[in-house]
Amino acid sequence: MSQQVYNFGAGPAMLPVPVMEQVRDEFLNFQGMGVSIIEISHRAKQFEKVLLDAQERFRQLTNLPDNYKILFVHGGARMQFSALPLNLAGRSASKKCLYVESGNFAKLANKDAKAFGDIQVIASSADTNYDRIPAVDPSMIDQDAAYLHVTGNNTLYGSRWQTFPETGAVPLIVDQTSEMLSRVLDYSKFGCVYAGLQKNLGPAGTALVVIREDLLEYASPQTPALLNYKVCAGDNSLTNTANTFAIYVTGLVLEWLQQQGGVAAIEKINEQKAKILYDLIDGTDYFRGVILPEFRGTMNVSFNLPSEELEAKFLKEAGEVGLYALKGHRSVGGIRASIYNAMPLAGVEKLAGFMKEFESKNG
Amino acid sequence: MSQQVYNFGAGPAMLPVPVMEQVRDEFLNFQGMGVSIIEISHRAKQFEKVLLDAQERFRQLTNLPDNYKILFVHGGARMQFSALPLNLAGRSASKKCLYVESGNFAKLANKDAKAFGDIQVIASSADTNYDRIPAVDPSMIDQDAAYLHVTGNNTLYGSRWQTFPETGAVPLIVDQTSEMLSRVLDYSKFGCVYAGLQKNLGPAGTALVVIREDLLEYASPQTPALLNYKVCAGDNSLTNTANTFAIYVTGLVLEWLQQQGGVAAIEKINEQKAKILYDLIDGTDYFRGVILPEFRGTMNVSFNLPSEELEAKFLKEAGEVGLYALKGHRSVGGIRASIYNAMPLAGVEKLAGFMKEFESKNG
Repeated sequence: MSQQVYNFGAGPAMLPVPVMEQVRDEFLNFQGMGVSIIEISHRAKQFEKVLLDAQERFRQLTNLPDNYKILFVHGGARMQFSALPLNLAGRSASKKCLYVESGNFAKLANKDAKAFGDIQVIASSADTNYDRIPAVDPSMIDQDAAYLHVTGNNTLYGSRWQTFPETGAVPLIVDQTSEMLSRVLDYSKFGCVYAGLQKNLGPAGTALVVIREDLLEYASPQTPALLNYKVCAGDNSLTNTANTFAIYVTGLVLEWLQQQGGVAAIEKINEQKAKILYDLIDGTDYFRGVILPEFRGTMNVSFNLPSEELEAKFLKEAGEVGLYALKGHRSVGGIRASIYNAMPLAGVEKLAGFMKEFESKNG
Repeated sequence: MSQQVYNFGAGPAMLPVPVMEQVRDEFLNFQGMGVSIIEISHRAKQFEKVLLDAQERFRQLTNLPDNYKILFVHGGARMQFSALPLNLAGRSASKKCLYVESGNFAKLANKDAKAFGDIQVIASSADTNYDRIPAVDPSMIDQDAAYLHVTGNNTLYGSRWQTFPETGAVPLIVDQTSEMLSRVLDYSKFGCVYAGLQKNLGPAGTALVVIREDLLEYASPQTPALLNYKVCAGDNSLTNTANTFAIYVTGLVLEWLQQQGGVAAIEKINEQKAKILYDLIDGTDYFRGVILPEFRGTMNVSFNLPSEELEAKFLKEAGEVGLYALKGHRSVGGIRASIYNAMPLAGVEKLAGFMKEFESKNG
């Protein structure tokens, strides 16, 4: 290629360069076996080690308590939108499941769940176009509910829960797809967290699901075997042939993250990266952030230019200088810079420079 | 590596060498984009082309009639064991679904289905350790049933349906996981066929599902969105983030298969490869085939040696000369040579030579 490309795609997203190079270098010959990682059995001892290592690294990175299981479940986060009520609605006699609607995927999560429980949306920011995280008061959380589901970071908008609601005895479930391992969190507060791999972890097609052991006992008999978290936990995610490639790459990404100093270290860099873009947005009327400042996260920075024509021009010219995949989600429009863990500071600096120059030429 | 390795693993299995080399060569820079195929959006036009090309190549290779959809569904073949009755049991007022039990996976298929229909096993070869395909007479097929499910090729044993049963108006569903695209078949006879990718098609984690359009109308309301074939068909397998890497590699494998002359050409080579091993087995009492000769397929050749000790020695010495992953499935034992489309004739010839030498030294 003729120039360095910085990939701001929301997912499947860029992965750390050293990881990508290692995957390429050993693609035809994994650990001297003479065959590829994608050509060996999921039950081979070499793959078992890959899986166990990935789980152990995740445990170390999150300081995960011993009473939580780490699962790799087929289908990505969206599949869990169905699997969660199938596994957990049974905690409540009336199958009552609580949802907060803070964005597009939060809405999809409760839509997909409707076939499997009494789904109640207790708060929503739909009426303000998801420009905020809706307020949730403990009094809104029915203690008879099976769980409360929230979306930790809203990928389309960039808003996130700065602190999570106190839920009492009701397990808190967090979709961490676009922010897993981007900030230090106390996992003991969660009943279950999950993420599609394709943003901060690895290739697409699979989700990482972390679940407290006592929550494995409530699956509906109508749960497909491979979506039954108790079955997955019992077989350590090898009930059938796992997405071995995705788990392997995820393990390398987790190793890379440890080499960067872990979650606390990457969190600082993530804050620095987001601040560069938000400071620029706050310093001008030319760029307008999509969400209210107090709800800003560090993973997705969504903003608008003065007109759709200028946005189209921005995207075209950005692409020409190697700033790739900045187009906002089809349901939101505008510009979105996804700056996950793997995005280097230099990429954000280049984008900020481009934004300033674009404004000065087109302002 | 110091020597050529031939990988006889049952799956994830070896893929064609030119495909593997192309994946490696373009892993960091897909089509000059400066980013990897695993780092681009499933909605990028470049990935859409990958998906459409793979589907078109499959259609050409199978001479697939226009009224069939080609889907990529998360979770591999095992996930379809649940998805099939969820999608199709509703064709029958009593949700009656018929199964033939010709092996381990055929048994799992009806076990996983039990939560979703009135599952009836109309024939089984369990009492003879799956040494054959059980006979199915048209009179055994209740015309009120939603479907008849059979396992086209039984991976653990190597038996296959030489011809499929006539099912009248009842849709025939075939699990083709370990034989898809290995022989010419008339797809107009099938209601649905499916295969986990990780044997003849690509990396693990996803299934290719071919379904006749009129069968998309019967899904239970309790079908998870991503397992609903009508939803998948409507979104052309992009309801959520697909396993983009697996689809990409599968497309390359399909292109390679076209370059080999298509299914009819590879079928001849597959027959030649299987004949080499079965002729050797038939010519001695030292090696004993697991299945009756009239049920032999071309994909998996399972056999025993005179003792478990000799089998262990065989596996050890085979590994030392680069004949990899010949161990039989944990539930069957013995030796299994999986010789899918990608296994070159030279690999089979090397194995046959090793077998003869082993017999002469240890016979």
